[in-house]
Amino acid sequence: MTTNSFGHLFRVTTWGESHGPAIGATVDGCPPGVPVDEAFLQQWLDKRKPGQSKFTTQRREADEVRILSGVFEGQTTGMPVQLLIENTDQRSKDYSEIAEKFRPGHADITYWQKYGIRDYRGGGRSSARETASRVAAGGLARAALKVLAPEVEITGYMTRVGVHEIDRARFDAEEIGRNPFWGPDAEMAALWADYLDGLRKSGNSVGAVVEIVAKGVPAGLGAPVYSKLDTDLAAAMMSINAVKGVEIGEGMAAAMLTGEENADEIFMGNDGKPVYSSNHAGGILGGISTGQDLVVRFAVKPTSSILKPRQTITKTGEAAEIVTKGRHDPCVGIRAVPVGEAMMACVILDHMLLHRGQVGDNRGRIG
Amino acid sequence: MTTNSFGHLFRVTTWGESHGPAIGATVDGCPPGVPVDEAFLQQWLDKRKPGQSKFTTQRREADEVRILSGVFEGQTTGMPVQLLIENTDQRSKDYSEIAEKFRPGHADITYWQKYGIRDYRGGGRSSARETASRVAAGGLARAALKVLAPEVEITGYMTRVGVHEIDRARFDAEEIGRNPFWGPDAEMAALWADYLDGLRKSGNSVGAVVEIVAKGVPAGLGAPVYSKLDTDLAAAMMSINAVKGVEIGEGMAAAMLTGEENADEIFMGNDGKPVYSSNHAGGILGGISTGQDLVVRFAVKPTSSILKPRQTITKTGEAAEIVTKGRHDPCVGIRAVPVGEAMMACVILDHMLLHRGQVGDNRGRIG
Amino acid sequence: MTTNSFGHLFRVTTWGESHGPAIGATVDGCPPGVPVDEAFLQQWLDKRKPGQSKFTTQRREADEVRILSGVFEGQTTGMPVQLLIENTDQRSKDYSEIAEKFRPGHADITYWQKYGIRDYRGGGRSSARETASRVAAGGLARAALKVLAPEVEITGYMTRVGVHEIDRARFDAEEIGRNPFWGPDAEMAALWADYLDGLRKSGNSVGAVVEIVAKGVPAGLGAPVYSKLDTDLAAAMMSINAVKGVEIGEGMAAAMLTGEENADEIFMGNDGKPVYSSNHAGGILGGISTGQDLVVRFAVKPTSSILKPRQTITKTGEAAEIVTKGRHDPCVGIRAVPVGEAMMACVILDHMLLHRGQVGDNRGRIG
Amino acid sequence: MTTNSFGHLFRVTTWGESHGPAIGATVDGCPPGVPVDEAFLQQWLDKRKPGQSKFTTQRREADEVRILSGVFEGQTTGMPVQLLIENTDQRSKDYSEIAEKFRPGHADITYWQKYGIRDYRGGGRSSARETASRVAAGGLARAALKVLAPEVEITGYMTRVGVHEIDRARFDAEEIGRNPFWGPDAEMAALWADYLDGLRKSGNSVGAVVEIVAKGVPAGLGAPVYSKLDTDLAAAMMSINAVKGVEIGEGMAAAMLTGEENADEIFMGNDGKPVYSSNHAGGILGGISTGQDLVVRFAVKPTSSILKPRQTITKTGEAAEIVTKGRHDPCVGIRAVPVGEAMMACVILDHMLLHRGQVGDNRGRIG
Repeated sequence: MTTNSFGHLFRVTTWGESHGPAIGATVDGCPPGVPVDEAFLQQWLDKRKPGQSKFTTQRREADEVRILSGVFEGQTTGMPVQLLIENTDQRSKDYSEIAEKFRPGHADITYWQKYGIRDYRGGGRSSARETASRVAAGGLARAALKVLAPEVEITGYMTRVGVHEIDRARFDAEEIGRNPFWGPDAEMAALWADYLDGLRKSGNSVGAVVEIVAKGVPAGLGAPVYSKLDTDLAAAMMSINAVKGVEIGEGMAAAMLTGEENADEIFMGNDGKPVYSSNHAGGILGGISTGQDLVVRFAVKPTSSILKPRQTITKTGEAAEIVTKGRHDPCVGIRAVPVGEAMMACVILDHMLLHRGQVGDNRGRIG
Repeated sequence: MTTNSFGHLFRVTTWGESHGPAIGATVDGCPPGVPVDEAFLQQWLDKRKPGQSKFTTQRREADEVRILSGVFEGQTTGMPVQLLIENTDQRSKDYSEIAEKFRPGHADITYWQKYGIRDYRGGGRSSARETASRVAAGGLARAALKVLAPEVEITGYMTRVGVHEIDRARFDAEEIGRNPFWGPDAEMAALWADYLDGLRKSGNSVGAVVEIVAKGVPAGLGAPVYSKLDTDLAAAMMSINAVKGVEIGEGMAAAMLTGEENADEIFMGNDGKPVYSSNHAGGILGGISTGQDLVVRFAVKPTSSILKPRQTITKTGEAAEIVTKGRHDPCVGIRAVPVGEAMMACVILDHMLLHRGQVGDNRGRIG
Repeated sequence: MTTNSFGHLFRVTTWGESHGPAIGATVDGCPPGVPVDEAFLQQWLDKRKPGQSKFTTQRREADEVRILSGVFEGQTTGMPVQLLIENTDQRSKDYSEIAEKFRPGHADITYWQKYGIRDYRGGGRSSARETASRVAAGGLARAALKVLAPEVEITGYMTRVGVHEIDRARFDAEEIGRNPFWGPDAEMAALWADYLDGLRKSGNSVGAVVEIVAKGVPAGLGAPVYSKLDTDLAAAMMSINAVKGVEIGEGMAAAMLTGEENADEIFMGNDGKPVYSSNHAGGILGGISTGQDLVVRFAVKPTSSILKPRQTITKTGEAAEIVTKGRHDPCVGIRAVPVGEAMMACVILDHMLLHRGQVGDNRGRIG
Repeated sequence: MTTNSFGHLFRVTTWGESHGPAIGATVDGCPPGVPVDEAFLQQWLDKRKPGQSKFTTQRREADEVRILSGVFEGQTTGMPVQLLIENTDQRSKDYSEIAEKFRPGHADITYWQKYGIRDYRGGGRSSARETASRVAAGGLARAALKVLAPEVEITGYMTRVGVHEIDRARFDAEEIGRNPFWGPDAEMAALWADYLDGLRKSGNSVGAVVEIVAKGVPAGLGAPVYSKLDTDLAAAMMSINAVKGVEIGEGMAAAMLTGEENADEIFMGNDGKPVYSSNHAGGILGGISTGQDLVVRFAVKPTSSILKPRQTITKTGEAAEIVTKGRHDPCVGIRAVPVGEAMMACVILDHMLLHRGQVGDNRGRIG
C-alpha cells in the first residue's frame, strides 16, 4: 500500500529527490539467475540522461547507477535489488524564488497544500529526475525479459511535438536513434528541431505524444478485471510526470469506429497461432494480451517551468508574477521516451510473473 | 495482490459471472457510522440497469442489490460490506455458438488462451454485467462521501457517439437526465437517437466518449509517485470494459499546447482559497488535487457482439464466419456513464481515507 | 490493504457477521482448472460445524456452503470464487444484555472503542462464526493442492486441554477422528471428556493447544524476509479468534536448546533428497520449507462468554456484574482444529503459487 | 506483494546482504513534519551494533546510518525515506567452507533449494545483519510516535537464556541497560554471563526469550480479522531471524487457564478510561488494543554457526562434517532485543495511521 511503488510481483519502489544526495529504486521480486551488471543498466540511463542536446535540460548528471544488493557473481539472487544514482549537479541556488511562489501548472502548490513541508529544490520529489530511477528499474526488467521472453522487443518514439505530428507513411524504425527526439520520421524531426529551437529561445515549452510498442509479447498476459494489462499500462504511463492522457491501440479514436470497423478479424497463422487482420485493439482484449504488438500512447504536457511571465500567488497568498529561470526541458516529452519504454518493460515482466504464478502456463490451445 | 480488487483503503473486490447465480462486490474499508441502506444503493443501479431504452441491451435484470454484511441498524460498522445482486434473466441458449467461435474484438479468445477454461455464457466474467457490482460499490462510496465531504458532486455524461460530438456551447447540465444517452446537449441527443437507431437496425454498434466531473473535491488528495490521483483514476477508468483511452483535463490535446498556454494561472480567491484562470490540468497537479473540478474522460470502443458477419476461427483453429445474435448494446458507452461515476466516487473516497491516514489533515495553508 | 484479507496470490477475504443474513469468503487467485464442487467443500465445514457434541456450542447451523462464482462445469475458471453460507439459527434475544455490558476477555469493549458502532448480536464480526468462511476457503485451497501437490497431507489435532496434555508416546493418528476433541491420545481424550463435562456444568470454560502438521510439502516454499513461510503461518494462526501464541517446530522451547542440540543434522536420502536427523526446525529454515513436516502449534484461550459472574462496566461507564448465558463453547479450541487446518492449506497453496510466480521452479539441485 | 516489505501505511522494505556494499531500508508512508536526523536513528543502531561485548559477534561494524531521501531541513516530507548503512567489515574469506557445505539449522540449504543462486558470504540476505535495517526503520517509527503518540514507551528485555529464566519478583527496569543482555534481573544477568562464557568457550550457542512491552498505546488500534494488531505483531516478530515462537500476553500458557481465570475484569478508572484487574490479554482483545500494556514475547533459537562438529552434506550431495569458524553470536537473542523493539514501534505506528485512515478518530466513548 505504498504510494511510491508499482507492480505486483516485480515491484519497484522509487525514492529520492531532485537535489538530495541520491535517488534510486528498490526492486523486489526480480527472479533469480538473471545475468545483469551496471553496464547493462547504464545504457538505458544514458538514453534518458539530461544535457545530451540543446532540446533537453542543461543540468549535467552522470546518472551512474550502482547495484548495491541482490546481484551476486553477475546474476540476480532473488533478493531485493537496490539501484542507486548519486545526484552530482545540484545548483540549489537556482530555485530560491520557487520556495516562495508557486509555478502555475506545477506540483509546487499541491505538494504544499498536501504536506505543508515541501522540498522546493528543483521540485524535490515531483521533479522528472525521479524517472531516472524508473529507467534503472526498467533496465533490470529488460535483463529479466531477455531470459524469460527473449523475443520481446520494446521501442518508444515520439509521434507529435505540439501541433506537428509524424506522417506514418514515412515511419522508419532506423531513424528513431538518429535524431535527438526519438522521432521515426526524419522530415518531421528536422521540422521539430526548428520549432523547438524557436520555443527554447523564447523561453517557452511545448507538449508531445510518445508511443511505445512491444513486439513478441505472448498471448495470455493480463487479468480480469482491475489488474488488466491495459489498466496496469495506463496506470504506469499516467504515473510519469506531466502525462495527461493514455491510449491503447485506437485509443480515444475508438469512439469513432463502428463495431464492424473495430473488430480485428481472426485467422489461423501458419505457425499455429492466430493472426489478425488489423490491430485496433493495440494487442489487448478483455485486459489480456492477444499476442499482437502492444501499442500504448501517452500525451506529455509542456514543462511548466518557463521564462514567460505568469500570474501566481506566494505561500502567504499574495499575488505575484513568476518567471522560472533554472535549467528546464523545452519539451520534456523527449526524455519521456526511455521512461515509457522502462514502464512497458516493467509491466510486461510483472504480468509474465503474475501469469505463471496464478495460472502456471498458457493453458488454452487453439487447434 | 488480487486482480479483481481496486482501491487502497476503500477496497472493492467484484466477483461473479454474467450467467452465474449472482454477482456482487465485497467492499472492505468503508468507514463506520455511514448511514446507508439498499434503497440508496438501488438508485445508482437503476441508472445502469439494462433494458431501459431501445439503445441498450434488451436483457431484463431487476438488478436488486442486497446488503449481506457490514451494515447494522442503518449504519456501516467498519466491517466488510457484501453487496449481492442475483442474476435473474440468463438465457444461456443464446450463447451456444460463442462456445466454439471467438468473437473478433472480444475477450473470448484471450480468456481461452490464458485460462483454458472459459465461461462462455454471456461472456462470463468479461461481460459488462460485472459493472453492476461496481455501481453498487460506488453507491456505498457516495454514501460515505455524503458524510466525509458532502460538497463533492459527481456527474457523468456522454460527449461523443461515433463521429458525433456535443457542442460545448450548448452544454446544459439539466439536459443530462432527460435523454437516454446522458447527453448534455439536447440537439446532439436527438441526432444520436436517429444515428443509433440506424446502427441498431443494421446490426452494428459504435463507440463513445464519456466525461466524468467531480466538483467540490478538496485540494491535497493524491500521492507521489505511483498512486497519484490521476494514476488511480486512469486505472479505474481503463479497467471498465471496452475502454481504450483515458484523459485528465486537456488529455491528449495537452500535447498541442505551449507551456504558456497550458499554465493555469493562480489567484487568491475571496474565501482564502486559490482560484485558477483555467483548468487545463483537470484539477490535478503532480498527482494531487488542486481543489478545482476533477475532469476525466474515456473512450469506449463499440460492442464487439454484432450482427454483421466477421471472419474468425474456432477453438479447433478452423476458419469460420461469426454473427452474434444475443441481446447486446448498440452503444455500450451509454451504460458506462454511471459506471464511470461509480469509479470516480470510489477513487475520491479512497484518496480521502488515504490522505487522512498518511498525512492526517490538510497541512499546508496559503496566506 | 484490506484488513479482512489474507494471502498473496491465493487471496481470501471473509465477510459477514454472526447474526447477519449470511457469511462467506471471496477468494481471488485460485488457479483455473481445479475440479471442485460444493460437496467437496462441505466435508470440511461439517468438521467445524457447531452442535456436534455437548462440548461445543449448541447453536444449530447447517453451514451449507454455496459456490456463487468462479466455478464452471465442475472446474475453477481462474475468476474469483464466492463462497456463501447462510445464517439460519440466529437467536438474537440471547444477546440483549451484551448490548450494554462488556464481557471481560471479549472483543466487545475494543470494537466499541474503535468503531463506536458495534453489532452486538452474537459478537457480530468478532464471533468465531467467521471461521466457517475460513474453512470453506481452506476447502478450496485443498482442492487446488490435490492438483498442484497431491502428496501434501494436512492434519490437525488437539495436544492440550487446560492442564491436561497428551502423551506423545500414545500418539495414534487413527484416534484423531474417533473422539469429539480431535485428540490423538485415546486415554487423554477420555480424561478431557470428564474434565470438560465438569467445566461445562459449572458454566466455566478452558483453553487448549492445537497442532497442525503438513506432510509432503516441497522444499523451497517461503521467502525472505517478511513473507517467510513461518511469518505467514504465524499470522494465519494468530488471526484465528482467541489464539494467543504460535509456535513453529520447537517453538518457545527452542530458547532452552543449545546450538548443538538444535541443529537438525543433514544426510542424503536414497531418493536423492536430503533427510534430517530431527525436526527441531518444524520444517522451516530461514523462512523457507526444508521438505520436512511443517509443524505449527497454537494456544487458544478459554471462551470469555461464561456463566461465572465477572465484574465489568456498561457503555455508560457504570460498574456491573456480568453472566453470559447464550450458547457457547466450553472449549473453543476444539473447533479451532479444522480452522487451523484450513489456514495451513491456504498458506501452503499461496506459497506454491508465489514460488512459481517469483522463481519459476525449484532451482537448486543437490547432488 | 513484495516479500521483503512489511506494514500497511508505514511500509518498510529492507534490502541488502551481509557482505554486499551496503544494506538499508526504504520506508514509504512516514507522515510529513516529523523531526528526525541521523543522530536520532543512530542511538538505536548503537544498541544493536555487534562487537559490544564478548557475548555478541566480534564483527566490527560502525553501523552508521545515512538518510538519503525524504527528510528536508530536519523534518520528514512525506516522501520515501531511504536509510543506508554501509558494510565495512566483510571478511569474506571466513566463509569459504560454507559455499560448499550446508550448516545444519541454517538457511543455507533452503536458499539453495529455492533459488539455485546463493550469496554464501556471511549468510547473504539470511544473515542477522539484515536486522540493522529494521532498527533504522524502527528509529524512524519512534520519531513519528514522538509526535503522534508521545506517551508510547517501548521497552524490550531478555527473560530467558537457555534454561535460565528471570525471576519476575526481581524485575528492575533500571537494570535493563546495565548488563550486556538487556536483562531486568541483576542476579540472573550475572548467572547468564558465566553460563554464556562457558558456552562461548566450548564453541556452542544457546537460545533465548525476549519480551517487548509497549506502554501508553491508545485503545482502538488493530482491525478484524486478518490485520489484527496481534496478527501483525506475531508476523513482525516471527519474521526476525531465528524466532520460532511468539506469544501475546499469557501466550501458550493461556491454554491452561479457565475462562474465569483468564477474564481480565473491567472497572472504570478515575480518568474516565477503563482499567483492568489483570492483563492476561497482553493488551489486545479481538485483535484491537485495550489501552493496557502491549506484551509480546518471542523465542530465539540458538545460532546454528557453531564450532561443535555436525553432520551435513555438500552441494553435490556428499556426506560431510562441518565446523563453522567465522565470528558468531553465542546467543543471538541478545541483539534481538533492539530488533524486537523496532518491530513493535513500526507496528504501533502503522496501526495508528491505519486507524486514522479507516476510522478517523477513536469513536466509541465509554461513560
